[in-house]
Order: sequence, then structure tokens, then C-alpha cells
Amino acid sequence: MNNQTQDPKLQELKTRLLEVNDLRSASSLLHWDQATYMPSGGAAARGRQMSTLNRLAHEKFTDGAIGQLLEDLRPYEESLSFDSDEASLIRATRRDYEEAVKVPAEFEARFSDHIAAIYQDWTAARPNNDFKAVQPLLEKTLDFSRELADFFPGYEHIADPLINFSDRGMKASTVRALFADLRQQLVPLVEAITAQPKTDESCLHGHWPEAEQFTFGRKIIKAYGYDFERGRQDKTHHPFMTKFSLGDVRITTRAKEDDLAEALFSTLHESGHALYEQGINQDYEGTPLANGTSSGVHESQSRLWENIVGRSRGFWNHWYPLLQQANSNLSNVSQDTFYRAINRVDRSLIRTDADEVTYNLHVMIRFDLELQLLEGELSVRDLPEAWHERYKSDLGLTAPDDRDGVLQDVHWYGGTIGGAFQGYTLGNILSAQFFDTATAAQPKVPQEIEQGQFSTLHEWLQENIYQHGSKYTAPELIERVTGDPLSIEPYLRYLRGKYGELYSL
Amino acid sequence: MNNQTQDPKLQELKTRLLEVNDLRSASSLLHWDQATYMPSGGAAARGRQMSTLNRLAHEKFTDGAIGQLLEDLRPYEESLSFDSDEASLIRATRRDYEEAVKVPAEFEARFSDHIAAIYQDWTAARPNNDFKAVQPLLEKTLDFSRELADFFPGYEHIADPLINFSDRGMKASTVRALFADLRQQLVPLVEAITAQPKTDESCLHGHWPEAEQFTFGRKIIKAYGYDFERGRQDKTHHPFMTKFSLGDVRITTRAKEDDLAEALFSTLHESGHALYEQGINQDYEGTPLANGTSSGVHESQSRLWENIVGRSRGFWNHWYPLLQQANSNLSNVSQDTFYRAINRVDRSLIRTDADEVTYNLHVMIRFDLELQLLEGELSVRDLPEAWHERYKSDLGLTAPDDRDGVLQDVHWYGGTIGGAFQGYTLGNILSAQFFDTATAAQPKVPQEIEQGQFSTLHEWLQENIYQHGSKYTAPELIERVTGDPLSIEPYLRYLRGKYGELYSL
Repeated sequence: MNNQTQDPKLQELKTRLLEVNDLRSASSLLHWDQATYMPSGGAAARGRQMSTLNRLAHEKFTDGAIGQLLEDLRPYEESLSFDSDEASLIRATRRDYEEAVKVPAEFEARFSDHIAAIYQDWTAARPNNDFKAVQPLLEKTLDFSRELADFFPGYEHIADPLINFSDRGMKASTVRALFADLRQQLVPLVEAITAQPKTDESCLHGHWPEAEQFTFGRKIIKAYGYDFERGRQDKTHHPFMTKFSLGDVRITTRAKEDDLAEALFSTLHESGHALYEQGINQDYEGTPLANGTSSGVHESQSRLWENIVGRSRGFWNHWYPLLQQANSNLSNVSQDTFYRAINRVDRSLIRTDADEVTYNLHVMIRFDLELQLLEGELSVRDLPEAWHERYKSDLGLTAPDDRDGVLQDVHWYGGTIGGAFQGYTLGNILSAQFFDTATAAQPKVPQEIEQGQFSTLHEWLQENIYQHGSKYTAPELIERVTGDPLSIEPYLRYLRGKYGELYSL
Repeated sequence: MNNQTQDPKLQELKTRLLEVNDLRSASSLLHWDQATYMPSGGAAARGRQMSTLNRLAHEKFTDGAIGQLLEDLRPYEESLSFDSDEASLIRATRRDYEEAVKVPAEFEARFSDHIAAIYQDWTAARPNNDFKAVQPLLEKTLDFSRELADFFPGYEHIADPLINFSDRGMKASTVRALFADLRQQLVPLVEAITAQPKTDESCLHGHWPEAEQFTFGRKIIKAYGYDFERGRQDKTHHPFMTKFSLGDVRITTRAKEDDLAEALFSTLHESGHALYEQGINQDYEGTPLANGTSSGVHESQSRLWENIVGRSRGFWNHWYPLLQQANSNLSNVSQDTFYRAINRVDRSLIRTDADEVTYNLHVMIRFDLELQLLEGELSVRDLPEAWHERYKSDLGLTAPDDRDGVLQDVHWYGGTIGGAFQGYTLGNILSAQFFDTATAAQPKVPQEIEQGQFSTLHEWLQENIYQHGSKYTAPELIERVTGDPLSIEPYLRYLRGKYGELYSL
């Protein structure tokens, strides 16, 4: 690929794609700035500016000239192997193009303006615990989500097109079945664990200055392989990873000075997303191939580095003495006590703080509520109550207010209802499936982790997953990497092994 | 104005202008990020991204539909008074439009790509003291500058169109005459001063931690009226002010821990630019009216707040005791010693560090070299030597290298040769002319400054200058505000008064 192509049509296609990419990257920077450094006075204009850029990017990408180029390139594409970079670029672009042209530009513009407005209102409504303030706009989001899905007629479930945007090849029925299987196995595990005495996690709650927390987290992700020459870390309210080019992949983190798990694990999590993006073949820069391939595969990488690696006993053999040096509160706390604290399983209210075992129950609640909303079985007005009911029935808890209820996650206030959450659980499932495959291929990985060495694992992921970007769809990639389709078995084995030991089940 | 207009053509014009504005604002944010937080790995893509946005903004602004709307709006414009916001918007837009359409889009694209490339190379060449590395690109900049000027045939001097971009209504011959007048008066003043014993400025060079320097500077600019809800300050290598909307006007500053003047006065300087932009009528948001009206008027505000206010004796009556509290190195330094140190006149090599009296000599050197380059009297190859010769003859100094010579300022490596520098001296001249008018209208301003109060001055500037944005051209504004055309007399009176006292002339 690169700029080596001899085909003038492909060259023209790449020039056009680069322009689209530049508009989208600029929009991403505007968003990053909004979430990190922007003064409050900039909010109104910023929403409009992102909306303008997104609209222009959509206009440019759906230009008929791109469609014509893709048609003209068919014979060239067919002359190449499926695995060739150029064929993959044409294939991935065609897939995205055919999807994008189904959505009218005027819809994109209206929806984009709407998202800017609801996001801004949500940032005020959440601290004020004021669901009513965003309810009318959220009703419009539901309408928009349905309207968007209806541009893709022939679906089995109205959520299918929305799920397909982030996890191509998945649909409501497959996710439902998968989640039902998983749930059946998880619920008894959660019950068995929570029947045990609660784990003491007080060691995580001594005071630790923010700056020191960040320093420690950075040391770990540097060891993981995160390249600070091609990225940086900033503070934000809601941690995320974002990318402006393959040479500039940033993460954001938040810290609580009385909770050392907060910044630490959100840093490890976002670094996993960033390692994926930093690892994409540099030749793909500026093309649709230069992105992680699906929401689920992306999340598999954040969860792998956060949990499977970062919450493992072996990992802390190396890092715990260093953490004790950095944080004197821990000097009299044993590694085992700390390890148990960071892996404490408990029913809780906040998804992003949830432990590995209950986390998926949070996701399933949201996934089910999305489907019910789209189906018309649930109204936005009744959503707060439905939220509380599901938490009561699934987790035995009721949030004191909507702030920690239906206002908790940004997703519905920054995008569609539908397709927003399934990727988290798909990611958990895949993280174990990929890690199993990696350790089967490279049996020294666990020992290296115990020594604070991550290069073998990082290189394996780089070689097998990261470099490919969106060259393969998630189902293609999973099959290619693991030899199997998506399976919940490795994940359940992982959970049972780890938590069976921890809770003596 | 606002969104109140009943005229549908004007409404359509404003919608189109808003789109152009959003692209330009996004480009400005990309630049701000490049200069503040961007990791080095982002550089290559960033240049291209800014170039894409600038090209699209130019394409959108020069769209024939805007020309047609401007034509169609003539009768409406003529039905309004010159001073009305709507008439001013149409007038200012037409002026900018007629200028922009003369420049072909393909030129803009080529030039924008070139600027991205030379800027990136300059950031490496300057620390390496390697003029040769940028010389070929600078030669291309000169070609581009000439090519650009030639899109505006009928000029008297090839620099005229370039000067006109930043200081409308000015041309090489008027600036030359003005500078010759000023120079004639300045040179004897510099000579008289530098014949005196050198001022001791060692009090400025004790160690002072960067964070404390920023805190103190922020306190002052807050008192000036800089609104941190609609702006922020960050660190950068080359201080600048930038704006993403009227609600988001940022400044950047650099600090040296052994030089307390560096961060302090660059902060006051940039805050002056920012006060101007923050003060523009909010109804102008997103239109060509929402910018300072010229380079010279902009600089008059930065210099007014930096020098006329911030380096005055009265100002430090209030702030010096506070500075002594903040910086213990000064506890045994008298206010008079400090005041003399921050106003020390000395021939030096670096424009941005130069004192008020010699500063204009630095500008004149650059202005003259620009004209010679454009005239073909000087080649880029010979520029480093010509630079050294002029410093030798005008300031009696020779820089040890090109880093502090011809590589010193970003301007030629981030834009045209021609039109880049005259605004600095025009600004100095205007700062005194405006301040004279302000104090004549509000005689209590000097006493308020002595008490750390700036509201009367700020309100006067807001009312008379800031709110208007680009509604009036600089010549119109100067006449309107002061009742006179641009004049060097107030500035010379100011310098002679202040430095006559300081150096007992």
C-alpha cells in the first residue's frame, strides 16, 4: 500500500479518504479539548464546530465520486488477494461507503446538532441529578436512533443496524443468546461469591496525591509498551482514548486521592485501547483501515491489559513492591491483602467501577433497556424507574438518584440508543479468548508478566491483532487468530479459576 | 444583528460564514494543540490536517454563492446606516471576499502545504542553528509571497498587498515614511540613553519557580479583566493568543526560572490581545466582524497592557509589595531598583526581549529585509549575512549564530515574507495614541492603575475599541476614537517622558 500504488484511481480514492480522515481527526481533537482543557465559555460554539466538521466529513465521504471510484476499482480489487492491503482498503472502504450513503446528509446534520445539544445538557443535568432536564432530548435521541435504523430496512430487530455499526456481524438475537448463556453461568458465580464474607478493601482508600498516582500509572503503561512520543495522558471527567493520527494516540484518566484503584485501573484500561491503535500498520494512516476493527475487539484489549494482566497475582509480584515504595500507606499491607482488594467482587451501582464478575450484569441491564426502548416496550419517561427496577432485581441494589442511575453513562447522551453497550461484554469475552491463544503460542508470557516484562505479549498482540487495524472484521479476525469463532468458554474458565481461588469456591 | 435578521439572504450568508468560521476555528485549535500539548509523533499528520481545513475554509468562503449573496444584498446594505451591524457585516464580508477570490484555491492548497512543511522544519532547524536546512524552503516562501502579491496587480510596491492583509490601508511607502520619521527621533534617544551607565537588572535573575510565576501573572491579568471562564493560559515555546470562539480566547506563555520578566511580561502582552478579542460584541460570533481589525490595532492592545500599564511606575506602587511577598528574592530590592530593571534600555539581539525604546529598531530591520527580499535586491542565501550586517549597523551587535539571527522569529517560517512585522511598530505607536485619548476622557485612569484598579480603562477600551471587532478598519477606528489619523507624536512624548526621567536626559 503506502504511496506506492500505481493505480491512479486508487490514488485518487486515497486522496479523498485522507480529506475525510482529516476532518474527522480535527473533530476528535475538538472533542478531546472539550473534555480536557476547554473553558466553560467555549461550550456552545464547540458543539456547533464539531457538528460542522462531522457534517462535512459525511458529505465528503458520501460523494458520488467515491462510489464511482469504488466501482471502477472492482477489477483491480479482484486481481488482488483478499489479504493484500490494497484489496482490504477497497473492501473496507466499500463497506463503510455503502453504509454511509444510506444515511442522508440532512439527517446526519440534524442528528449531529442534536448530539451536541444533549451532550451539553447532560453535563449539567448529571451533577444536578436532573433527568427531567434531558428527558425531552433523550426522547428525540430515541426517535433519531429509530430513524437511523430505518435507513437499513430488512433488519430482524430494529437494534440490528445500530449494533452492526460498532460490532459488525452481530445482531440483537445473537447478542441476546450469547448474553443469556453467559448470564446463566455468571449469576450462580456472583451468588456463590457474595455469600462469602466481604473482602476488606480499606487498603485502597488511604490518601495518595494525584500526581504520584499518575506517575505510577505511567510507569506501568510505559512498560506495557505505550509510546509517549506518540501519545500523552491528560485528566478528564470520563476517561477515554482518542486518536488524531497513528502518531498521536492519547488517553485520559481521572483520579480520586482517596481511591488508588480509580486512576490506576482506568489508566491501564485506556492504555489497552491505545496500544491497539498505536500498533496499527503505519501504512494505513489516513484510511478506513487505520482504526480498531470493532467495539468488542477494542474493548478486549482494554480489558486484557486492565484485568487479565493488571489484576493478576503474577503482575503484582513485580509491581507491588514498587507501589509500596511509591505509596507509604501500603507499607504494612501484604500483597495478598492488596490483591484481594483490587479483585473484590461486590454488587455495586456504577458500571465503570464494577468488578470483573458483576460488570457484565451492568452491561446486560443497559443492553436490555436499549432493546426495550427501541421496541417501544419502554418509554423514555419510564426509563429511570425501569433502571432502578433492573438494578434491584439483577444486583439487589437501588441507586439513591438518577445521577448514579440513568444519567450515569455518557453513551445515550452522546450517540444512539442501541449498539452502545454490547461491545463491553463482547470485549470481556474476547479478552480471555485472545489471552488464551497468546499464552498457548507463547507459554513464557505469564512468567514475563511476573517480572514486569510485557514485550512477548505485546509483540504477539501487535503481530496478530493490532497491525491489521480494520483489515479483517471482528468475526474474521477472531477466527484467524484463535482458530475458533467467539466463545464464552475461555472467559468463564478464567473467571472460575481466578475467583474460585480467591473466594475458595 | 444576532439571529434577529429578517432578511433571508443575510441569514443564508451568515450560515455560510459560520461554516467557514468553524473550519478556521478548528484549524486554530489544531495549531494551539501543536504548540502546547501535541506529542512529537503527531507532527506530520498535524501539518496536513491544518492544511486540509484551511483549504476547505478557503473553498467554502470563495464559493460563488457567497459572491451572489453579497451582490443580492447591496440594496439591503444601502438601506442601512454605515454604522449598523448588518451593513458592517456585509461590508466587511465583501471586502474579505473580494480579496479571497483573487487567490486561486490551488495556490492556497500548495501554499498551505508548504507552510506546514517549513514550519515543521524550522522547529528542528532553529535549535540546531541550521539555516541551510530551511533555506530552500524559505526560497519557496519568497516565491509564494511574490506569487500571492501578484494576484493583486496594480500595486505600487510588491509588498503592498501583503501589508494590506494584516494592516488594511497601509502600504510600503507609507510605512517606510512613518518608520523613517520614527527612526530619526529614536536613534538619538537610544544613543543618549546608552551613553549613560548601564542599569543593574540583576534583581530579575534570582530563581523563581515557574508555577509561582504563573500564579502571580494570572492574578494581574485577572485584575486587568481577562475572563478565565472564557479563556485559559498554557505553556508554549512561543507565546501567542488564539481564539476558537468569542467564549474561548486563550493565551500561552513561557517561563524562565532565572528571569522573572520573561513569563510576567509575555503574560501581560498576550492578555492584551485576549482582552481585545474577549471584548468583541458577542452578536458578531462566527462572522468576519468577530476579529480584531488589524495587526497594528491588535498589537496596540498587547503593548498598552504590557508596557504603558504594566511597566509604569504607578502600576508597581500596587503590585510591587505583592510581588515581594510572592518572591522572597526581592525582599531587599527597592521598588525603584525593580522599576529601573524592568525598563532597562539596552541594545540586544532578540526582538521579543527588547525594551520599549530599541524594540522598533528590531522591527525596522525585519521590515526593510522583507522589502529587499521581495524587490529581489537580496537573496535568501544572503539573508543571514544581511541580518548580521543590519544588527551590526543599527544596534552595534552581531548574533553569534543564526539561531538568534535569521532563525529567531517564527513569522517567515509560518507565513509570507512581507507584511509580517510592520504591525508591531504600528502597535507601539497606536498604544500611546489610544492611551492618551483614554486618559484625556477618563483622567482618573492613572490613579486607578496605582491602586491596582483597571476597570475604567478596560471599559473605555471595550466601549471604544474592543466591541467593534472588525466593524471599522484601522484608519476608520483610529480617526473615530482619537479624532486624528495615526500619529507618532503621542508615542514619542511617552518615550521621552518616561525614559527622560529614568535616564535623567
